[in-house]
Amino acid sequence: MENYIYFNPTKIIFGKGTHSLAGEQVLAFGGKKVLLHYGGGSIKRTGIYDTVVASLDTAGVPFVELPGVVPNPRISLVREGIELVKRQGIDFILAIGGGSVIDSAKAIAFGSLLAPGKDIWDDYFMDPTATIPAAMPLGVVLTIPAAGSESSNSCVITNEDTGFKRGVKTELYLPKFSILDPEVSYSLPPFQTACGAIDIHAHMFERYFSAVEHTDVTDQLLEGAMRSVIDLAPRILKDPRNYGYRAEMMYAGTIAHNNSLNPGRGGGDWGSHQIEHELSGRYDMTHGAGLAIVIPAWMKYVSRKHPEKFVQYAVRVWGVTLPPSDTFGVIDAMIERQEQWYRSLGIKTTLSDLGYDDTYFQDMAEKALVNKGSIGSYCRLGAQDIVEILKLAL
Amino acid sequence: MENYIYFNPTKIIFGKGTHSLAGEQVLAFGGKKVLLHYGGGSIKRTGIYDTVVASLDTAGVPFVELPGVVPNPRISLVREGIELVKRQGIDFILAIGGGSVIDSAKAIAFGSLLAPGKDIWDDYFMDPTATIPAAMPLGVVLTIPAAGSESSNSCVITNEDTGFKRGVKTELYLPKFSILDPEVSYSLPPFQTACGAIDIHAHMFERYFSAVEHTDVTDQLLEGAMRSVIDLAPRILKDPRNYGYRAEMMYAGTIAHNNSLNPGRGGGDWGSHQIEHELSGRYDMTHGAGLAIVIPAWMKYVSRKHPEKFVQYAVRVWGVTLPPSDTFGVIDAMIERQEQWYRSLGIKTTLSDLGYDDTYFQDMAEKALVNKGSIGSYCRLGAQDIVEILKLAL
Repeated sequence: MENYIYFNPTKIIFGKGTHSLAGEQVLAFGGKKVLLHYGGGSIKRTGIYDTVVASLDTAGVPFVELPGVVPNPRISLVREGIELVKRQGIDFILAIGGGSVIDSAKAIAFGSLLAPGKDIWDDYFMDPTATIPAAMPLGVVLTIPAAGSESSNSCVITNEDTGFKRGVKTELYLPKFSILDPEVSYSLPPFQTACGAIDIHAHMFERYFSAVEHTDVTDQLLEGAMRSVIDLAPRILKDPRNYGYRAEMMYAGTIAHNNSLNPGRGGGDWGSHQIEHELSGRYDMTHGAGLAIVIPAWMKYVSRKHPEKFVQYAVRVWGVTLPPSDTFGVIDAMIERQEQWYRSLGIKTTLSDLGYDDTYFQDMAEKALVNKGSIGSYCRLGAQDIVEILKLAL
Repeated sequence: MENYIYFNPTKIIFGKGTHSLAGEQVLAFGGKKVLLHYGGGSIKRTGIYDTVVASLDTAGVPFVELPGVVPNPRISLVREGIELVKRQGIDFILAIGGGSVIDSAKAIAFGSLLAPGKDIWDDYFMDPTATIPAAMPLGVVLTIPAAGSESSNSCVITNEDTGFKRGVKTELYLPKFSILDPEVSYSLPPFQTACGAIDIHAHMFERYFSAVEHTDVTDQLLEGAMRSVIDLAPRILKDPRNYGYRAEMMYAGTIAHNNSLNPGRGGGDWGSHQIEHELSGRYDMTHGAGLAIVIPAWMKYVSRKHPEKFVQYAVRVWGVTLPPSDTFGVIDAMIERQEQWYRSLGIKTTLSDLGYDDTYFQDMAEKALVNKGSIGSYCRLGAQDIVEILKLAL
């Protein structure tokens, strides 16, 4: 195990009927004027908007609205939010949505407090060495279990002008509270449900592939959590209004990304995520759908260089029963099972399936490495490695 | 899953060489004058005391000392600490020790802020309906991985005049930070190491036995963590200066009791713990040693009434391969394995082994139920049930 610091003060309020607590929580955490940040009309159709607004009214907290967050959230809307916060004297951000809305809210939360002359995109998202100095308090009402952003230190934004999709990390914008009512996910379409499950599994998977030794406890935690997600996803697609399944998946989404399952592992690999960011930045794909294409290709490529952890993953998570001495037989059987799992959820596993070819492979590889020498930690990848992985994804 | 609120803001600082960070952490969390609370001379022999005191000096934070905490920490020393805090204008408690020291420090942290006329023992520890109103900030330097008190909401104190051992719970005294350097456990004697592992396993075990449905994710997390602890304990006894093993066990001790593995499970059973408190309150036994006696007896008794969860536990945690349809065959094989695990760690599993008989069984059962109608949640136990369990522990 490596040395680590774990700090996650987000208060998770989980369960049926919890949306009406939003107003009192904002008040409890000192909010006096709120930016209500969300996406489109779905929170109005489902009634979440009305419940949250009523709770703010009851708490006597005024608010200003900024809707319009789209998947792969844009830096332009973040900039608009920052201006609005400054102009209106807002002191608390309340995000109602999934990962895109929460990430947009996180960016506004720290962007609003930057020193004059500092640019949120150039000086923070594009500079991997930058340290975020401060952030406004943030609360979350989660509507999609997937990204885990409701209690993660991560924030990923797309610059629609340059095509770059980049993330920053800080504990400063960890939400003060996140309200998770699993019933919100009843109405998610199958595609969103499947992409969410794939993203949740991927957050555990990235943390699992670590080269650090003596991590048996966290190996077992991650393995158990991944087995559960693999088992739950098809059950939910068959029985989308089953509270128990939806609740377990929503809980899994949170622990997948709050770092509680991976202390001391050195942070995980994240090579697949960074390659996927190039795909979804270029083609505006849903993140989970992109992962279902990149991860099998990443496994095919990386398992040939560093097979060790893949055998344990195959045996313990996917129950491959071939003799462990047949290293590549075990690994290939596992990759086939994982691809089959993605496909059973209705998600494509190759770029060709979606009509994309190799035109931008070199460009994507170069973009992935801007300001960085390599990506990945279990296996470090350079430009040529990324291109080879993308070829395996065709 | 049940509705739940999860909130655990303790900052965990884990790894080699971290003791010297104590002073700057006290300062970062606003401490201006510290009560340094610890047990006997071991922290002076191991050098921890000197390192922590030097870090306080460097940070410029003055401190007052209160040593003398004993296992099964006493309310009399807590009262002494409260007087000292008030008299000296102390505003931060720093505990250096294991669960006993931390629990004593927690009691001082909230006892120092009680309203005039309120008695910490009568009005809080003996009143299960009481709500603790406030607590002074607390920091921890952990020396024994076992109790999990370094990031738990739990605090258990013994009244040496009445023989009662009682706990309270609140998030208010959750440590602001806890410093965990696994190297401190190198010097733990085998008995303490074994009792610590048993206590850690028991904290997961109590959480596992829940009657709540749809808890597959947390079932799997707890099962994986228990398998790791079962595997690590004998390895550590054979190789006590192995950093990796010690680090994993210390990490396991923290997650066993910080509620991160059991949201939505309704809190767990805790019947065995409460019976054990009567044993250790009466005989001043080490908590882990008492658990190794009570838990097998609890399993023998409760599995006959509610076998469901025991079969899953036997198969998934202990790898019992008998056909699951042979319910009691599977369960009895598991109980035998768990008892054998305790004995393999050098710990006795019956009261007779320690020379105790049934003299106080009725008295202990009645004491366990003072101010409560029953104990346990997976299986509710009354006085007669407790006596039967104690008989099975003979």
